[in-house]
Amino acid sequence: MSKIVYISNAAQVVTMKGHSEQPAKKERMSEVGMIEHGSVLIEDGVILAVGTDQDIRAEYSEKLENAEVIDATGKTVTPGLVDPHTHLVHAGTRENEYAMRLEGRSYMDIMNAGGGIHATTRATQKATSEELYEQSHRRLNKFLLHGVTTIEAKSGYGLTLEHELKQLRVAKELEGDHPIDIVSTFMGAHAVPMDEKENPEAFVDRVIDEMMPVVAEEKLAQFNDVFCERGVFTPDQSRRILEAGKKHGLIPKIHADEIEPYEGAELAAEVGAISADHLLKASDRGVEQMAEAGVVGVLLPGTAFFLMAEFADGRKMIDKGLPVALSTDQNPGSSPTISLPFIMNLGCLKMGMTPEEVLTATTINAAHAIGMEEKVGSLEVGKKGDVTIFDVPNYLTLSYQYGMNHVDTVVKEGKTLVRGGSLA
Amino acid sequence: MSKIVYISNAAQVVTMKGHSEQPAKKERMSEVGMIEHGSVLIEDGVILAVGTDQDIRAEYSEKLENAEVIDATGKTVTPGLVDPHTHLVHAGTRENEYAMRLEGRSYMDIMNAGGGIHATTRATQKATSEELYEQSHRRLNKFLLHGVTTIEAKSGYGLTLEHELKQLRVAKELEGDHPIDIVSTFMGAHAVPMDEKENPEAFVDRVIDEMMPVVAEEKLAQFNDVFCERGVFTPDQSRRILEAGKKHGLIPKIHADEIEPYEGAELAAEVGAISADHLLKASDRGVEQMAEAGVVGVLLPGTAFFLMAEFADGRKMIDKGLPVALSTDQNPGSSPTISLPFIMNLGCLKMGMTPEEVLTATTINAAHAIGMEEKVGSLEVGKKGDVTIFDVPNYLTLSYQYGMNHVDTVVKEGKTLVRGGSLA
Repeated sequence: MSKIVYISNAAQVVTMKGHSEQPAKKERMSEVGMIEHGSVLIEDGVILAVGTDQDIRAEYSEKLENAEVIDATGKTVTPGLVDPHTHLVHAGTRENEYAMRLEGRSYMDIMNAGGGIHATTRATQKATSEELYEQSHRRLNKFLLHGVTTIEAKSGYGLTLEHELKQLRVAKELEGDHPIDIVSTFMGAHAVPMDEKENPEAFVDRVIDEMMPVVAEEKLAQFNDVFCERGVFTPDQSRRILEAGKKHGLIPKIHADEIEPYEGAELAAEVGAISADHLLKASDRGVEQMAEAGVVGVLLPGTAFFLMAEFADGRKMIDKGLPVALSTDQNPGSSPTISLPFIMNLGCLKMGMTPEEVLTATTINAAHAIGMEEKVGSLEVGKKGDVTIFDVPNYLTLSYQYGMNHVDTVVKEGKTLVRGGSLA
Repeated sequence: MSKIVYISNAAQVVTMKGHSEQPAKKERMSEVGMIEHGSVLIEDGVILAVGTDQDIRAEYSEKLENAEVIDATGKTVTPGLVDPHTHLVHAGTRENEYAMRLEGRSYMDIMNAGGGIHATTRATQKATSEELYEQSHRRLNKFLLHGVTTIEAKSGYGLTLEHELKQLRVAKELEGDHPIDIVSTFMGAHAVPMDEKENPEAFVDRVIDEMMPVVAEEKLAQFNDVFCERGVFTPDQSRRILEAGKKHGLIPKIHADEIEPYEGAELAAEVGAISADHLLKASDRGVEQMAEAGVVGVLLPGTAFFLMAEFADGRKMIDKGLPVALSTDQNPGSSPTISLPFIMNLGCLKMGMTPEEVLTATTINAAHAIGMEEKVGSLEVGKKGDVTIFDVPNYLTLSYQYGMNHVDTVVKEGKTLVRGGSLA
């Protein structure tokens, strides 16, 4: 007998229906497919039906007889949230640098002085796989508590073959062990190691010739990312890295135009990246080229908030036709938060997005940014039974009652993992 | 036999020791009295001892034999948080206006068109005492979940004698029933009712002659507040209201200089207010006069965040010698959040305050702003056993891992009310 889960009678069900083939852009980002008094039926972990509670009861009365019922009366149901840009697997924290920044030091200053990414690289290199696994597992549980059921995770705190592989293997192990779906990205080019500052080209060669083939061969990543920024990797170096990855079947992603305009957006369009991320200083031309090339713009307003920088102009990008996704950028230096719901608040209050657009940006568009659009990101028949239930009477309240985590229940492939805001 | 609660061996105990006589200002706002490997002992709801775990074990071994132990290993302990400015008792929500604001309408526009405070006034007037009680009780539980054990609550959505008394009586009932300590403020002068717009002076007369004597006689409030702002109440009207309150024993508070500079800070100093709140547009002179007169500045950065306004310059105010407190300003229009921990994040990231200063501002200085400094706001012998335990290894992480609620345990007068982040 099949296992039926019946999420019943929500005040609102946000389905995100109809965006699985193409990422939503322009006006389509506002079409969240909302059903009032809606229900979701999951059979053996897969969505069987979504509709008004009345319709579901009429059509599936037999299936409902033995169903596990999750009463969503008065609550708001969305697809399990998708976080398309995190640095999940790393060791340690950097609250000391935060205190330095509050005193006026800049993020890039701290990094160039051996802090920043380099500090976490030292900690991650030193950590055993078990330590990395344990710290990251705890973070995954916190993601769950904030409604996230699918996540992207980058390497890039190893910066040597041995330690990049260590990070990616831990991510693979967690993908097997933890209920959250994890999609891996190789990011050997996250920073030039301190001791190779004088010869960055040699490090780029090593990323391409030494690391990339092993990552591809062991199938440790689907994506290949680079921090294209003045003082980190140039556009030319970034192009070499991303083009080399493509030959290994690794799909390009790029950290683009975060701190200075550096033609990262243009490069994303040129190499056919699946996403370009950050984009605070992206040029209008770059954004237009991305929109034309079908690149998803992944905006990370938490990072701007935490670094006290200007926010990316999400409003303008959407108006220019760029499909936008949102992410926490979870990492110990520039964005230690694990709350994607808070990132939605910033999308509305700091980037001019609407409550509908931020929902699209954290579900189906986020799924598109990591190639998961056929499996997750919307409540449609045949997709994974990944559902987040918020203790609010409508989705508007997610943005309205800001700065709070309203997640009540999280269901992953039909299994209840969070109940009453706590791990089940 | 007395009841002993032993909160043991926290990574850090933030005591806020030594600020009970005077609100902390300037450098003293950074003195949080931190004890590493610290413990707190509560006897019959009152703090018996605070110190290193080693000292507590040595000195109180007998008391510890029958103690209820709350293991705080690896966690951070602070005084129960104090929220000194809320509009707790009200009916309904206004997420519809939020959507209007995201489309570009201003808060004052919406208010002058009969929305804003007027919309909540209509809802609150219509609500029964039972409905108000029930909605406010749920909000109090959410405050608890965010670490708050003492709160100020204003009237001001009644705007007639009958309905102002209804609000204040509900607050009094909740003060008796709910474990959170509630301090009440009369704010009949929160807005000029829509149908009295043409004759605001007559409404001021009614606040003073009709409402105030009954509020004072029934001992329904300790404080008297007014929204001094262009288009609401003038400085002259505000002065009349606050001076009249003093004759009834009601201590002045003031909503000052939120949207325009309007000499609200100066008036606070002149009338000897216990606090002046908002202060986004306060003049330097006004801030200096407040500092001299011993007025606490209560800053509400959530409101600026939610209204997409410029933040008050908390850094400058502290440097000028003003003792600063922080608050959610919880209300359905300009600040629907219930998270004081998030307000701390904004204090650091948006007002230039340090992690130490925001802790002082949400504990002992907040207590001073509502006359509760002898009872709460610090972990000192003889004070109420109100303790918040955060699941973070140091207090810096409260600000560092932003946008999240790290509250693990809340103890109110020795009783555990929140455990593992959920109501106990």
